[in-house]
Amino acid sequence: MAGIMQTITVNLGDRSYPIYLGKGILAQTGELMKRAGCGVKVGVVTNPTVGKLYLETLQEVLRSAGYSVTAILVPDGEEHKNINSLSAIYDQLIRERFERSSTLIALGGGVVGDLAGFAAATFLRGIPYIQIPTTLLAQVDASVGGKTAINHPEGKNLIGAFYQPKLVIVDVSVLQTLPKRELAAGLAEVIKYGIIQDPELFSLLEDNLEKLLGLDQETLTKAIAASCAIKARVVEKDEREEDFRAILNFGHTIGHALESQTGYERLLHGEAVAIGMAKAATISAGEGYCDDASLKRIHHLIERSGLPTELPSDIRLEELVKRMEVDKKTDAGKIKFILCGGIGKVFFHRLSPEEIKNRLSHKTSTE
Amino acid sequence: MAGIMQTITVNLGDRSYPIYLGKGILAQTGELMKRAGCGVKVGVVTNPTVGKLYLETLQEVLRSAGYSVTAILVPDGEEHKNINSLSAIYDQLIRERFERSSTLIALGGGVVGDLAGFAAATFLRGIPYIQIPTTLLAQVDASVGGKTAINHPEGKNLIGAFYQPKLVIVDVSVLQTLPKRELAAGLAEVIKYGIIQDPELFSLLEDNLEKLLGLDQETLTKAIAASCAIKARVVEKDEREEDFRAILNFGHTIGHALESQTGYERLLHGEAVAIGMAKAATISAGEGYCDDASLKRIHHLIERSGLPTELPSDIRLEELVKRMEVDKKTDAGKIKFILCGGIGKVFFHRLSPEEIKNRLSHKTSTE
Repeated sequence: MAGIMQTITVNLGDRSYPIYLGKGILAQTGELMKRAGCGVKVGVVTNPTVGKLYLETLQEVLRSAGYSVTAILVPDGEEHKNINSLSAIYDQLIRERFERSSTLIALGGGVVGDLAGFAAATFLRGIPYIQIPTTLLAQVDASVGGKTAINHPEGKNLIGAFYQPKLVIVDVSVLQTLPKRELAAGLAEVIKYGIIQDPELFSLLEDNLEKLLGLDQETLTKAIAASCAIKARVVEKDEREEDFRAILNFGHTIGHALESQTGYERLLHGEAVAIGMAKAATISAGEGYCDDASLKRIHHLIERSGLPTELPSDIRLEELVKRMEVDKKTDAGKIKFILCGGIGKVFFHRLSPEEIKNRLSHKTSTE
Repeated sequence: MAGIMQTITVNLGDRSYPIYLGKGILAQTGELMKRAGCGVKVGVVTNPTVGKLYLETLQEVLRSAGYSVTAILVPDGEEHKNINSLSAIYDQLIRERFERSSTLIALGGGVVGDLAGFAAATFLRGIPYIQIPTTLLAQVDASVGGKTAINHPEGKNLIGAFYQPKLVIVDVSVLQTLPKRELAAGLAEVIKYGIIQDPELFSLLEDNLEKLLGLDQETLTKAIAASCAIKARVVEKDEREEDFRAILNFGHTIGHALESQTGYERLLHGEAVAIGMAKAATISAGEGYCDDASLKRIHHLIERSGLPTELPSDIRLEELVKRMEVDKKTDAGKIKFILCGGIGKVFFHRLSPEEIKNRLSHKTSTE
């Protein structure tokens, strides 16, 4: 039976919004938009892959609720999250005379969400947008917290805005069509929430990993709800990432550099983050902050999820560390790392490029 | 004697900021930035024309206050307020490793302010920026209220963000080097504040127009302070232009369309707005809202300022009205106009493209 199982509210004053979580709730989009007071003109940003699966259904749902709908197709893949795709969205919005009361819907994964979100943030100085994430990664991460962005040839997400959606619709049923590799990549972010804030979630993952990989809807819903709730609470404390919110970047300092160095093609974001988390845990242990048992649990859970824990052998460390320096999280020469002190605790720690290079230069033994 | 004569605070909660107004206060920039807690890395965005006059001075002032300064030159002119100039700024910021704690200063007129402001709004999802407006127009308009934007070939300011500066420095001395034509164009916006909110300001302009055109610093300071204060109060009530703030667009619906139709080259923004205000007053009178005496005073003050009140004779009305429809202020077919009911009162009124065309199709007689 379809229906909303849960609503998580992100409390940000006049920018607050609900995340609706449930099975088959894509079909309720029109209704939920009416409740939110959306204008009659709607653009659905999606890519051909996701579009083939869900665009027609969504368009019908919206039209029968009285909305005028336009599809806006962007090419699939992280390498297209750039200024050209953004320009193409602007051009279509202008051609079709979108107004300040029009709404953009992001139907897809993180790339579509970031791109559509940034277009919404900047078209006519901001129009409303809705996230309908179709990957596990986007459901637990990109769709919550209002980070929107495009990439620059020199680095990921260097151009963007903090801009909150009007609402988020997380339909767990759509994960049935998600390729296994992407499911695993999404799990990386779920594992991250366990490491940074929630030992119980981490244990739930350890105990139910096979169910999750087998797409058991109930277990998935539990893990997604816990993840969204953690992210919502973190974002509420520090919307614009002045400080605290950066704990969400656990594993991302290395992860982003790795994605950039491999041209956003070889590794999925979640895979790069998985390696980044494994390495951040190793560094944490090396610096004396993370006990051996926790280090092992982290590495093993990542591995059991089918995710990598080691840097690809052809990665040149010198270049990797250089790429970290243009990361947003750098300040005054040193690189601000998020380290863990076991499972459920993280903290900031500044490390020099030299220190990082040394810690990364040998494989981790967790046996 | 140099010094701050006045501080106007724009009250927007955690986005509040001061506008410092005075003679020769460019020299106090470093000091004022320290007071605001700005980071050590600063980029000054300016164009060659303004740069030749003030860049060296500003750089010295900043360096002697301990800042590390980079000049970021953008080409002069409205036609360069586009995605290419924006990209060039991003590239330089990335090349020079700007961080989230770095500051951008916009030294110039509205084009530089909008462009640098939008770059600041979107680089690393937002870095601090400071406005140092060097034209009268920018001092009374663009520098207050956080509207940042670039143009799209299809219309002005279609891409942008609401993003407040950290502080604004209005040095009236820099107007000494402003070409007369630009001074007059700036006066158009000052006249606008009189029409929309302040009969006293309007009278002050009528009584002291020669002093203003002769760059009398005291009169200029009075007119600028009154203008900034009006804009600040309007923006405080409606930061994101949900509704009320749109009164600031009096004269701009026609003005923007006119600028776009003439390729942003023939008319200065203030000149287009002058025509737009004259025409909006004419439409207001035609619709029975504005009395004849007020209509005459509006037209005469605009003319005495050396500004146009009639559409260029080669402008095709059909096309002009079409351009209004892609303006941000349209909604559901009709065009939202700001009309005046005499001096000091404006209100919204929806007009069909046909009605506007009819009202614009004959010259105004105010004799």
